[in-house]
Amino acid sequence: MSVNTDTGWLEQINWNQEGLIPVITQEEGSGAVLMHAWMNKEALLQTVQKKQAVYWSRSKGKLWTKGEISGHSQLVKNIFMDCDNDTLILVVYQTGGIACHTGRHSCFYKRLDNFTWIDAAPVIKSPDEIYEK
Amino acid sequence: MSVNTDTGWLEQINWNQEGLIPVITQEEGSGAVLMHAWMNKEALLQTVQKKQAVYWSRSKGKLWTKGEISGHSQLVKNIFMDCDNDTLILVVYQTGGIACHTGRHSCFYKRLDNFTWIDAAPVIKSPDEIYEK
Repeated sequence: MSVNTDTGWLEQINWNQEGLIPVITQEEGSGAVLMHAWMNKEALLQTVQKKQAVYWSRSKGKLWTKGEISGHSQLVKNIFMDCDNDTLILVVYQTGGIACHTGRHSCFYKRLDNFTWIDAAPVIKSPDEIYEK
Repeated sequence: MSVNTDTGWLEQINWNQEGLIPVITQEEGSGAVLMHAWMNKEALLQTVQKKQAVYWSRSKGKLWTKGEISGHSQLVKNIFMDCDNDTLILVVYQTGGIACHTGRHSCFYKRLDNFTWIDAAPVIKSPDEIYEK
């Protein structure tokens, strides 16, 4: 069986001026939104090939395989695109049940409560433990 | 009772260079991700005050009250922010069960299937019907 070299599906995407697309990562089953990140073409290609989330880190200016240090990788179950072809959803299995570098399930743990952002979700595992070497 | 004029919660947000923040709109109950849009400070303020989604349209360069033409407004139930203070989730009740201008439940109706984007969700109401005047 030959490798699929048709990149039409990649060309259909409306990449922004920096060649990026925003990605919403959603947990399979629970439907929880875990994080919001960015991909370039290479990141999306690797994500599809490995069936594991690879993002583009805008702050570090390089590809970033989710979980490469923490072990909290994301196994890709489905990829959706919106009507404008300019945003993706990655439906994933979240290894360890922790997506956030703070040790929480989701990065979206701050809830607006009476004009104040409050922490509304527990730390499952301390970052010291996650990132110790 | 006085109006709350403390804007500390607004200042905590890491607005991007254009003064915007990406917003993920998620349906209460189902957890479905309905759309991805942008807000500036004024849009977020109005959203909080009206408890109804008001976005910033980057293409039109103006505020955009979701549903002002279609009637498919979004009633805000909760607002979450991520660990980097640079993305929001709006948890909403979606009027009419239709968020997409194509007449679908969610804007994310294209699924990647064997290197092809396929339409994976039905049109609930035809756009001709939604936008007729």
